[in-house]
Amino acid sequence: MREVYLDNMATTLLDERVLEKMWPYFRENFANALSPYPMGVKAREAVELAREEVAKLIGASPSELIFTSGGTEANNFALRGLAYANRKKGNHIIVSAVEHHSITNPARALEKEGFEVTFVPVDRYGVIDLNFLERALREETILISIQLANPEVGTIQPIEEVVKLASKVGAVVHTDCVAAIGRMEVKVDKLGVHSLSLSAHIFYGPKGAGALYVKRGVRIQPLIYGGIQEGGRRGGTENVPAIVGLGEAARLVRENLPQWKSHLSDLSMKLIKNLQEKVEHLHLTGHPEKRLPGHASFIVEFIEGEALLLMLAHRGIYVSSGSTCTSKALKASPVLSAMGYPAHLIQGSILMALSKYNNEEDIDYVVSEFPQVVSRLRELSPFKEGWKDMDKWGACAPH
Amino acid sequence: MREVYLDNMATTLLDERVLEKMWPYFRENFANALSPYPMGVKAREAVELAREEVAKLIGASPSELIFTSGGTEANNFALRGLAYANRKKGNHIIVSAVEHHSITNPARALEKEGFEVTFVPVDRYGVIDLNFLERALREETILISIQLANPEVGTIQPIEEVVKLASKVGAVVHTDCVAAIGRMEVKVDKLGVHSLSLSAHIFYGPKGAGALYVKRGVRIQPLIYGGIQEGGRRGGTENVPAIVGLGEAARLVRENLPQWKSHLSDLSMKLIKNLQEKVEHLHLTGHPEKRLPGHASFIVEFIEGEALLLMLAHRGIYVSSGSTCTSKALKASPVLSAMGYPAHLIQGSILMALSKYNNEEDIDYVVSEFPQVVSRLRELSPFKEGWKDMDKWGACAPH
Repeated sequence: MREVYLDNMATTLLDERVLEKMWPYFRENFANALSPYPMGVKAREAVELAREEVAKLIGASPSELIFTSGGTEANNFALRGLAYANRKKGNHIIVSAVEHHSITNPARALEKEGFEVTFVPVDRYGVIDLNFLERALREETILISIQLANPEVGTIQPIEEVVKLASKVGAVVHTDCVAAIGRMEVKVDKLGVHSLSLSAHIFYGPKGAGALYVKRGVRIQPLIYGGIQEGGRRGGTENVPAIVGLGEAARLVRENLPQWKSHLSDLSMKLIKNLQEKVEHLHLTGHPEKRLPGHASFIVEFIEGEALLLMLAHRGIYVSSGSTCTSKALKASPVLSAMGYPAHLIQGSILMALSKYNNEEDIDYVVSEFPQVVSRLRELSPFKEGWKDMDKWGACAPH
Repeated sequence: MREVYLDNMATTLLDERVLEKMWPYFRENFANALSPYPMGVKAREAVELAREEVAKLIGASPSELIFTSGGTEANNFALRGLAYANRKKGNHIIVSAVEHHSITNPARALEKEGFEVTFVPVDRYGVIDLNFLERALREETILISIQLANPEVGTIQPIEEVVKLASKVGAVVHTDCVAAIGRMEVKVDKLGVHSLSLSAHIFYGPKGAGALYVKRGVRIQPLIYGGIQEGGRRGGTENVPAIVGLGEAARLVRENLPQWKSHLSDLSMKLIKNLQEKVEHLHLTGHPEKRLPGHASFIVEFIEGEALLLMLAHRGIYVSSGSTCTSKALKASPVLSAMGYPAHLIQGSILMALSKYNNEEDIDYVVSEFPQVVSRLRELSPFKEGWKDMDKWGACAPH
C-alpha cells in the first residue's frame, strides 16, 4: 500500500542531510558548548554556525537570535518577555482570534496577571480585520502578536500593515512564523517586525529546537533563567545536536525555497482543484489565494473529520483534522469558529499539509482514494439527508 | 595521548544503548505524538513508556511527571509554577545560597515580582544551616527549594530534614536533583519532597530532555503554555527521540546504580587520596563524606583554575573550574563564596566529575599528570612565594 504523509503542520520528516550534520554531536563530540577545552570550543562553533544560518535565512543578525526548545517556547517567551519588558509603558496586548495555542494561552495567562488582551476578529477567510485592529490601538498598547501564516487554514496575514499601524502607538510586533518558514519567504526587514518565532521540526529539522528573533534594541525579559547561555536571555545547556540540525534545516530552506515553493504550490493547487471537482459539499477553508503553498484545508459536510482521518490512515494517507495540539481535546477548532463556521461544520474539517517529499503520484493517490472514503462515510452518516438531527452535535460547540 | 573526560557535571557521553533506542524516532517514526494514526500512536506509546521508566526510577507515578526541555526549564517551572500556584497563601520563598543558577536566577526574578526570598547560608562544607532555615520559616512561607546534591562541590543536603521543617508551615519543597540522578539513590517517598527536577544529559541521556516530578495534589502553574501535551501543564510538540532517550537512560540508572555508585566511589576516593598526597596546598572542597560518588572538587592554591584547566586539556584531561554555566562569566563561584572561601582561593578551584566510563587507568593518568601541571603553573605564578600581591585578584571578588 502506498503511504502518503500529509500531516506536515504537525511535524515533518527530518531531512537526511540534517541528521547527518547532527550525528557527530551525539557521541563523537558530546561536550557542553560552554566548556573551554577543544571539544567544547568545537561545540560552541557549531552552535554559532547554526545561529548564522538561521540569521541568514530570515535576514537577521546572529546576535538577534535566541535558541529555544521549539516554537511553543519561543512564542511563550515572546508574549511574556515582551509584555513584561514593556509593562511600564502600558498593559494592553492585541492578538488575533486565530493564533496558535502557544500564543492564545500565554495571552490568557497574562490577562489573569493584569494585562488586558484584545482579540482581533477575522473574516471568513481567516484574514484579520485591520480596521478593528486600528480602532483597538491605544497609548497603552505595548504588544501585538499576529501569525504570519495560519497552520490550520493556511491564510497569510498582512503583517506589514500590522507593523505600520503598530508604529503609530509604538507597540512591539511579534509574528509567529512556525507554519510559514520553509513554505514562503520570511525576511525580518521586509516584515518590519520586532520579534519572530520559528520551529525546526516544521521545516525538516529536528524536534527540540526553535528560535526567537528579537530585533536589536528591543528589550525582552527571559522566560527561562539560568546560566550565561544565549547572552543570559535563555538559560540551560544548549541542545547542540538539535541546534546544529536547526541550522542545517535553515540552510536547506535558504538554498531551496524557490523550488520547494513552486513544487508545493503545484501539488496543492492540483489537489484542491481535483478534490473540489470530485467531492460534493466540500469547502476549501482559509484564503483561496493568500495561503501557504502546499496547504489544503477543507470542510467536508455530513461527516466527522476524526472518522475521515482514521479511514484515510487505513489507506495509508495521513492527514489531520486541524490543530494537532488540540485535536484530542475534542473541542471545536477556535480558528474555524472565529472564521464563522458553525460547530456542526467544523466537525468535518480536515487538513492536508504537503511537504517537499510529496510528488504527483501522491496527489493522484489521494485524489483517487479520498472521494471513495468520503462516500463510504456519508453512507454511514446520520446526516446523509442533510442537517436534520442537529442536536447530536451540540456537545461540540465552540468553547 | 590518553583522553580522560572528567567534566561530567557539565554533560556526559550519551550511552550507546540510549542512542539506539532514540534512533527510530528521528526518521523511521517521526510522527507527532498527538497524531491519531498508527505512527502517531506508536510515538505516543514510546513517550508514555519513557514516562513510566522515569517514574520507576524515582518511585513516582507516571502521571506525576512532566517532561521538559531539560533541568533548567524544570527548575524554572518549579520555582515560578509553585510560587504562583501558592501566591494566595503567602509570598515567602526559601532557597539555599548554593543552588544552581537555574534556581537562584528565577528566585531573583520572583523577588522583583513581589515575592520575598530568603537565602539559607551553608557551612564550610556546603551543608545548609538547618537552624537558620527553621528560624526563617513563617506562615507566609510557601516554597523551599534545596538541591539534593551540589554539582560544584558534590555536597549532599539533608532534604528529609528540610521536608520535616517545611511541613510545620505547610510549605512545598522542591529539590533540584540534576546532579544527583545516576550517582545516588533518589526516591520521592524517602525524600518526602513535593517536586523534583532531573536532566537526561547528566546521566548518559540526551541533551534536550528533562522532567519535573510534581506530587499528586500539588498545584503548579505552567511555565510554557500551549496545547494539551503533558496534561496541559507543558505545551509544545513532544521531543520524542529525546524523551525516549531520557526513558532509556532512566532505565539504565535503575538497573545499574549500585554498581555504578561503588565504581564511582572507588575511583574518586582513589583520586582524592592520591592527589592530596602528591600535591601540596590542595584543598578538597565540599563535604569529605556526604558527597556525590565520583565527585572530586578542589582548590589548588597559588594558581588560576582556568589556566590549570587548559594545561590539563593539553594533556587530554578534561575538567572544569566549577560551574560550566558561569565559568565564562568570569565571576567568582557564588557557591564557594557562600562556603566562605575568599576570591583569591576560588580562582584556583577545579572540578573532576567522574562517570561510569572512567576506569583505574584514567585515575592513574590523572594522578601522574596533575601534580606536574600544578608544579609547572606554580613556577609561573606570581604567588609562588605566597599571597603577597593580592591586589591583582581584586577584580575577581564575589559579586
